Amino acid sequence: MTAIGFIGLGIMGGPMAANLLKAGFGVTGYNRTAAKAQALTAQGGHAAASIAEAVRNADVVITMLPDSPDVEQVALGTGGVFAHARPGTLFIDMSTVAPEVAQRLAESGHAAGLRVLDAPVSGGKQGAIDGTLSVMVGGDAADVAAARPVLEAVGSTIVHVGPAGAGQTVKAANQLITAGTIGLVAEAIVFLQAHGIDPEPAVQAMAGGLAGSTILNRKAAAMLHHDFTPTFRAALHHKDLGILTSAARNAGVVLPLGTCAASLMAALNAQGRGELDHGALITVIEQLSGRPAAAADPAGN
Amino acid sequence: MTAIGFIGLGIMGGPMAANLLKAGFGVTGYNRTAAKAQALTAQGGHAAASIAEAVRNADVVITMLPDSPDVEQVALGTGGVFAHARPGTLFIDMSTVAPEVAQRLAESGHAAGLRVLDAPVSGGKQGAIDGTLSVMVGGDAADVAAARPVLEAVGSTIVHVGPAGAGQTVKAANQLITAGTIGLVAEAIVFLQAHGIDPEPAVQAMAGGLAGSTILNRKAAAMLHHDFTPTFRAALHHKDLGILTSAARNAGVVLPLGTCAASLMAALNAQGRGELDHGALITVIEQLSGRPAAAADPAGN
Amino acid sequence: MTAIGFIGLGIMGGPMAANLLKAGFGVTGYNRTAAKAQALTAQGGHAAASIAEAVRNADVVITMLPDSPDVEQVALGTGGVFAHARPGTLFIDMSTVAPEVAQRLAESGHAAGLRVLDAPVSGGKQGAIDGTLSVMVGGDAADVAAARPVLEAVGSTIVHVGPAGAGQTVKAANQLITAGTIGLVAEAIVFLQAHGIDPEPAVQAMAGGLAGSTILNRKAAAMLHHDFTPTFRAALHHKDLGILTSAARNAGVVLPLGTCAASLMAALNAQGRGELDHGALITVIEQLSGRPAAAADPAGN
Amino acid sequence: MTAIGFIGLGIMGGPMAANLLKAGFGVTGYNRTAAKAQALTAQGGHAAASIAEAVRNADVVITMLPDSPDVEQVALGTGGVFAHARPGTLFIDMSTVAPEVAQRLAESGHAAGLRVLDAPVSGGKQGAIDGTLSVMVGGDAADVAAARPVLEAVGSTIVHVGPAGAGQTVKAANQLITAGTIGLVAEAIVFLQAHGIDPEPAVQAMAGGLAGSTILNRKAAAMLHHDFTPTFRAALHHKDLGILTSAARNAGVVLPLGTCAASLMAALNAQGRGELDHGALITVIEQLSGRPAAAADPAGN
Repeated sequence: MTAIGFIGLGIMGGPMAANLLKAGFGVTGYNRTAAKAQALTAQGGHAAASIAEAVRNADVVITMLPDSPDVEQVALGTGGVFAHARPGTLFIDMSTVAPEVAQRLAESGHAAGLRVLDAPVSGGKQGAIDGTLSVMVGGDAADVAAARPVLEAVGSTIVHVGPAGAGQTVKAANQLITAGTIGLVAEAIVFLQAHGIDPEPAVQAMAGGLAGSTILNRKAAAMLHHDFTPTFRAALHHKDLGILTSAARNAGVVLPLGTCAASLMAALNAQGRGELDHGALITVIEQLSGRPAAAADPAGN
Repeated sequence: MTAIGFIGLGIMGGPMAANLLKAGFGVTGYNRTAAKAQALTAQGGHAAASIAEAVRNADVVITMLPDSPDVEQVALGTGGVFAHARPGTLFIDMSTVAPEVAQRLAESGHAAGLRVLDAPVSGGKQGAIDGTLSVMVGGDAADVAAARPVLEAVGSTIVHVGPAGAGQTVKAANQLITAGTIGLVAEAIVFLQAHGIDPEPAVQAMAGGLAGSTILNRKAAAMLHHDFTPTFRAALHHKDLGILTSAARNAGVVLPLGTCAASLMAALNAQGRGELDHGALITVIEQLSGRPAAAADPAGN
Repeated sequence: MTAIGFIGLGIMGGPMAANLLKAGFGVTGYNRTAAKAQALTAQGGHAAASIAEAVRNADVVITMLPDSPDVEQVALGTGGVFAHARPGTLFIDMSTVAPEVAQRLAESGHAAGLRVLDAPVSGGKQGAIDGTLSVMVGGDAADVAAARPVLEAVGSTIVHVGPAGAGQTVKAANQLITAGTIGLVAEAIVFLQAHGIDPEPAVQAMAGGLAGSTILNRKAAAMLHHDFTPTFRAALHHKDLGILTSAARNAGVVLPLGTCAASLMAALNAQGRGELDHGALITVIEQLSGRPAAAADPAGN
Repeated sequence: MTAIGFIGLGIMGGPMAANLLKAGFGVTGYNRTAAKAQALTAQGGHAAASIAEAVRNADVVITMLPDSPDVEQVALGTGGVFAHARPGTLFIDMSTVAPEVAQRLAESGHAAGLRVLDAPVSGGKQGAIDGTLSVMVGGDAADVAAARPVLEAVGSTIVHVGPAGAGQTVKAANQLITAGTIGLVAEAIVFLQAHGIDPEPAVQAMAGGLAGSTILNRKAAAMLHHDFTPTFRAALHHKDLGILTSAARNAGVVLPLGTCAASLMAALNAQGRGELDHGALITVIEQLSGRPAAAADPAGN
């Protein structure tokens, strides 16, 4: 039985680890807040008291953490993964970090005798619970093949998109499209409401044509009812769009819509709503348009 | 058998009329270029030599025309629909026009004793051929109910979205999302190519997560291969975005992404590529980013 | 002595008429609100009870009105200028209207035997008081020459920019730059404040280099102190930017910054602050950035 | 006589050093390309063969270099300023670098016993030649007072804007306004040309009203004649806007126009025109609008 060390058991990591257990893998989990690791034991897993303990006997180590510094600390720190994993261990970082961070991790991991993949995901909390995430994998083909059974336990779309870092580059593009689509749906809803049209049947109609999208299907209803319970926090999407715009600048790519979407997400964060779901972007459009919903509820709750 | 007069047998209207015939309706078609109406006879329909002839004995009259002046001329002109249709005829304009034009047509039609719906569609040429269009219907509920069997012959999503003009308002919102999504997908593809990543597997990966959309599924492949055979002409999408931005301005709605997408589509048209498919929007992003594809092929073919 | 009929004695028209009197012209003023015309008599002018009375004996008729419908009504209406002015009268519309409205007015005026110029101004309330407006004149060269002594009484920069309508086209471009510069200065101020830097000395420093502008010199101080006493109302600038974006669309010109500035001005209006000075645009940037000034003072006063 | 070591004798630094000599200061210059330092001897200065030689006996050391890494290398490198300047030397970095780089330099300089100011300039090549630069100074008030006689030899506007780093923050705001104004003027010119209006008299008219700016006065003529001889290279302005957008992101400030202007400047660079004057931004607007000038001359010369 493949033994998996899983580090980072938050909104995404928790249900992903649970799905690995359901698929028959042995999972030893570690989380900075220990309570989350304890929850894993009720599902048949083990709770480790340290990273070292989580990875020492693992065949595969997965990290699912908020940001680049977290991953670098967990991977490269003195008590970290690279210091304690066995040679040949397959290290899969499923966090969203900058492509150059993923490339540096791959180099350091290779130097430590590990195999390394960057494998960020898309699909949000529901996709993590349902095991239907989309996984964009960067690294060597042989390592991707080895990882596939593990990744198939958490996702329904597993695609090898290129060498080390490529998974993160594709994730940046994915976050561009996702934020932009949320913004477009938000603008459409506010536009319809301003014309006195009930957006719910309109959303249904638009979903059936060329405007159709996963955001329209899964998120538009929550957006128009101002249900901003986090499935993916705006603060994290804001961070991801920073990775995007920086990578675009370095590569000499001009993204008129991407930078516009990044500005809107930055506004949501600057206004202190970063802990809400990214669908709260609609409140920025409402505010710009002087529409009552935002006025009546400045916190966007 | 319900008799339908169908006016405007172009890229969209042609296959829609064919689907009405297949569904068992009698269809008498009229097109300014007579050859297109002749094609209808081979499918079991009738070709009318004038609008008057097409609508005189019709229970339902459908118009599918490029722009507001066309519809106004066909409906209100001296030899037009309102002058020649029988009282009680159900007039369904499926063209994309400004909401206020739809409202004026409804008023004039009611004054002439007709029932009137605005019922623009989304789904493009393929949706028209497959009979899977999404139809956004504005008008009285009883008239929508009466029209439903007819509309179900051309579309798979039929939604009554509000009173006269509401179908067009929803269509404007639909075109906002569609143009914006094309732009986002274009930016993602150019971003990936600039990083040396093959966009085809990346598109597959993104389609499986929150970035998923009908545009990503149906149009991204053609966009990245620069196949711009028109399924929906950029010039028409440019026209539609003019309706959108004008309606937004009048309603006091601010659309940061919508106006950005409209600018990109305007650029595509200003550069003389309006006759290409709207997916050619990618050439504007390539050009801005100084990427070779655009340079090597300024016509975007 | 040249007799001038002056119609529209508001924030701009009032001081302009006063300057014409100071320059020795005879001025008969008309204003819908009669009190404003009465004020003119104290300065040596005459107050007319009707447009007909104001223009009947005039050599030159000037209109200074808020919007196109006002000008069309005053010029073309049954009791209007073209019906009552003597043949050969020089009609100068100094309002800001769409270029095509100016062209139609010129045609109608010529048909009525008048000479016609479009001569919109820039410089705001202070420029009107000081007689230092910039005047952009469209029309025939001979008529511009004839008008020059009159125009020099209200402005310090008088430029013949082209045929009928050209003055309005240049005014649209002028309003693009003005709104955009206000937006840029607003963004710079908010950026500096967010970094804890006092913007007043910074404005002084920036005014001395390539960032220098009339807006920075004349308006930045009021903007950063939130003094939004109208010198030019945001609602009028919003109207002007509608003329701009419509003309750009018709001419196939893409204005990325212009449309962005128009969106910001539209937001200011949509939020109910259209009666404030256009410098209140800074409140939109403050709001987007979640900065306290806007929160503490939602009305932007 | 105050002895000045001047490092970096390019388009800006060369004429600045010449003005210091004219003002009676002793100037020992160093430039990586030695020929430029030799030119200084003809004007009464000294050419140093190394940084150490340039700063060893200096009272004031000025650096005028392209980018942050250059300044850090020159200041902190083993053969650099901080290693060889005498304690108490006043180090003035007049380059444009990120505010945090300026803050780090101040800390390192203080640790080495030096006094440190960041004093970036605006005014371009002509301002450098004429000695009319605007200088934005960050640092301690006493050091600013000490530096004033030196700075007044190169600039006509010298403003102390805050503590260490503040000069660079103001410079970032300055570059936001400058790039944005160039973009606005470019859009206005293309808009006018598309309407068949000669932009030269129009520029004169606009310069006299609220649209007036240093860019309109000094640069519009070159822009409309496509004279892109560098007075400030687009590549450097692109770099500066990277500093701006990064600082805005970190401070939670949303800059809709600033990010739009940054995208346009990024496009100019991505298209390989970074070595042209920043006024070449007009070619991006021409290209977007499909206007002949860009088509006829893709290099923007």
